[in-house]
Amino acid sequence: MGRRYETISFLSDFGTVDESVGLVKAVIRDIAAHVAVIDLSHEIPVFDVRAGSLALARSIAYVPSGLILAVVDPGAGTARKCVAIEVGGGEGVFLGPDNGLLAPAVAMAGGAERAVALTNDEFHLSSPGATHAARDIFAPVAAAICNGTDLAELGDEVDAALLMPGVIPLPRDGTNGGLICEVLWVDRFGNAQLNIGEDDLSEAWGDDWGSQLRVSFGEEHRSMKIVRAYDDIPTGGPGLIVDSFGMLTVAFDRDSASNRFGIAPTDQVTLARYDDDAAATPRGMTTSVTLGPRH
Amino acid sequence: MGRRYETISFLSDFGTVDESVGLVKAVIRDIAAHVAVIDLSHEIPVFDVRAGSLALARSIAYVPSGLILAVVDPGAGTARKCVAIEVGGGEGVFLGPDNGLLAPAVAMAGGAERAVALTNDEFHLSSPGATHAARDIFAPVAAAICNGTDLAELGDEVDAALLMPGVIPLPRDGTNGGLICEVLWVDRFGNAQLNIGEDDLSEAWGDDWGSQLRVSFGEEHRSMKIVRAYDDIPTGGPGLIVDSFGMLTVAFDRDSASNRFGIAPTDQVTLARYDDDAAATPRGMTTSVTLGPRH
Amino acid sequence: MGRRYETISFLSDFGTVDESVGLVKAVIRDIAAHVAVIDLSHEIPVFDVRAGSLALARSIAYVPSGLILAVVDPGAGTARKCVAIEVGGGEGVFLGPDNGLLAPAVAMAGGAERAVALTNDEFHLSSPGATHAARDIFAPVAAAICNGTDLAELGDEVDAALLMPGVIPLPRDGTNGGLICEVLWVDRFGNAQLNIGEDDLSEAWGDDWGSQLRVSFGEEHRSMKIVRAYDDIPTGGPGLIVDSFGMLTVAFDRDSASNRFGIAPTDQVTLARYDDDAAATPRGMTTSVTLGPRH
Repeated sequence: MGRRYETISFLSDFGTVDESVGLVKAVIRDIAAHVAVIDLSHEIPVFDVRAGSLALARSIAYVPSGLILAVVDPGAGTARKCVAIEVGGGEGVFLGPDNGLLAPAVAMAGGAERAVALTNDEFHLSSPGATHAARDIFAPVAAAICNGTDLAELGDEVDAALLMPGVIPLPRDGTNGGLICEVLWVDRFGNAQLNIGEDDLSEAWGDDWGSQLRVSFGEEHRSMKIVRAYDDIPTGGPGLIVDSFGMLTVAFDRDSASNRFGIAPTDQVTLARYDDDAAATPRGMTTSVTLGPRH
Repeated sequence: MGRRYETISFLSDFGTVDESVGLVKAVIRDIAAHVAVIDLSHEIPVFDVRAGSLALARSIAYVPSGLILAVVDPGAGTARKCVAIEVGGGEGVFLGPDNGLLAPAVAMAGGAERAVALTNDEFHLSSPGATHAARDIFAPVAAAICNGTDLAELGDEVDAALLMPGVIPLPRDGTNGGLICEVLWVDRFGNAQLNIGEDDLSEAWGDDWGSQLRVSFGEEHRSMKIVRAYDDIPTGGPGLIVDSFGMLTVAFDRDSASNRFGIAPTDQVTLARYDDDAAATPRGMTTSVTLGPRH
Repeated sequence: MGRRYETISFLSDFGTVDESVGLVKAVIRDIAAHVAVIDLSHEIPVFDVRAGSLALARSIAYVPSGLILAVVDPGAGTARKCVAIEVGGGEGVFLGPDNGLLAPAVAMAGGAERAVALTNDEFHLSSPGATHAARDIFAPVAAAICNGTDLAELGDEVDAALLMPGVIPLPRDGTNGGLICEVLWVDRFGNAQLNIGEDDLSEAWGDDWGSQLRVSFGEEHRSMKIVRAYDDIPTGGPGLIVDSFGMLTVAFDRDSASNRFGIAPTDQVTLARYDDDAAATPRGMTTSVTLGPRH
């Protein structure tokens, strides 16, 4: 028998309105009673693989050694492969569909060292219907791994290089030294996390770019400064807060940036130095002006 | 002392907006620290005993040996009996109100072998008010059972035959060989589970009835085929998917059948062989036609 | 090393839409794997310190010996102190922001015996951003305490008398022997809990005040009797139920008192003896009449 595990961190788009999540935990408890399941979130928007992969990427630095089970899958119940992926010399094992959901977190954990397709149905629950792979495949397989079953027993090894890659959007260079960013995530308070950290600005612009940025949403432009706490956002806002993951996040103090600017995940937001801003808008406007068509 | 238990599977209509569920778990932890509580769901629609009993019936095959605590009770705090019901030679003990909620799952677990009314208040929390029976009666009693207290100590034995029965609606024979079914449950995706499995069709119609069915919702009729994965639903839908409990379920691929057909739990849906359909609608219509008054 | 703890009871306004709660639990599991976390609720209205402190006060009599972690903080990430407060000779340790959230529960647990500001960052997670104090400060500190770290190691001792006090509104005397109360909480069913118990009535009015009260919401007056179960509320309602915390609660049987009377937390409700009511409304009206301006 191989290494045993004590913890499964679990993320899905199942919601908690019905018993789907509960049944996964019930099956795990039944087969591997020593295991604790940590719910990361089950409120990933339905079928939103991108949102799930980003939530998993945000979480991965904090989850304990053990298994990470993640299921967001518009094609559940089809021929899509269910996979187990070993990382970090066996410190962690990811379980989920091979649809890119796991890829960013796997990469952050050092990359896939071994992967198997979960084809050995001796480890699955026999099921009256094929639509709940988490209950019938992932849960019993996760429990078996926690009990010491080696991945090799669970199915055919697959080439980790052939797993579906994930997509983490990177900032792109725009005109006049601007950086074309993307909204990764809007949290429950309406704060809009961008795909860029403070260090990335210094890398692009050097260290003397000042503390004010020009932030553009389509035709709308705003001047913002970078802050480290919500209370430091200027009264009336907005500000660019360094969020708990180190990412720049458009925020108001106790108001929704998403509502105020009409921005949602995947929307484009451009950052520029305030000097460039001044150059581009010679009349010194720092609030809404029209420069071009809205994206 | 009797048998000890390690797991309580817990279902309720309490929601998670307030601390009701948390206090039940806190009380259990306080009295029986070795016990793990598995949340099946706490989002059963308020007071909906039927929905709760169906969710429990869907879950029962998957819960570990141990206790099953279920509380959905429009009459909580009244004289309604709180009961404990032993099944499977002590493999499981159900706890809940005697209002039919537990009955289908108890039957699926082999039937009640022993039942007691939880009348011995030495095992209850003394409470400043009687409206939270889960916290004050079920939680401490469940913990006591997990610690090895025999059911006989918890109150007066009751005749299992006198427990309130549950109601699981069965398909009925309709005209022209049709089967009058009922929507048991609409899941969060809008899929509408019927009270009939694929085997029931063969039993009713033999094996050569083909793969197309005529599905009627009041005045609306649709042709559907039985599929095993959402991706196999014809583009544009709908289809009849064999769901993860083996039940036929009206579904669209990534759309809500409940919204599309305006169907909800307890609504009637009639299944007929496609040949019968052809006979009944000689012009071969397979989409919405008006044949009679809406139910 | 000091005393070890096995349980953390956790309350917050984080919701469960994202992974915030999950990451707190992941960090705790990583550092102190033996600890069970009991979720009291994470659906406290955002930033509502009053609602959080009341939910914690309702819970405190039921949580097991151990840690109580509570985070509702409009100023998270600012200079506001994070504190640990020991109560009951070490039976319990509260962790949270020093903003009054913990104060009522601490008082109910016997009062603060020792308090420290969590200033020793050796026990914190180094973080790319300061906005998730629960993950980066409270979680690792809570785990360290559970592992036996003494409070003195976690930061500078603070004078418990200087901690921010909480506010629990008390009933006030009104005119004609009436008691001016306040809605503490509206539960998910719309029941409106008042800040007064049955004993308080006898204290104010003696024992022979009868069983009917006159309950006033601004201009609206209703006669209600005190009941102990929802089924005992007169048909059509309303009634004053003694809720599971011993507080008088305006309730209908299966209807929302909050909607029916338009009342919400912090709204004023006046209770008077029915005799006074009769005197004040000589024509014996017991339903809605207009006596003055709405508050």
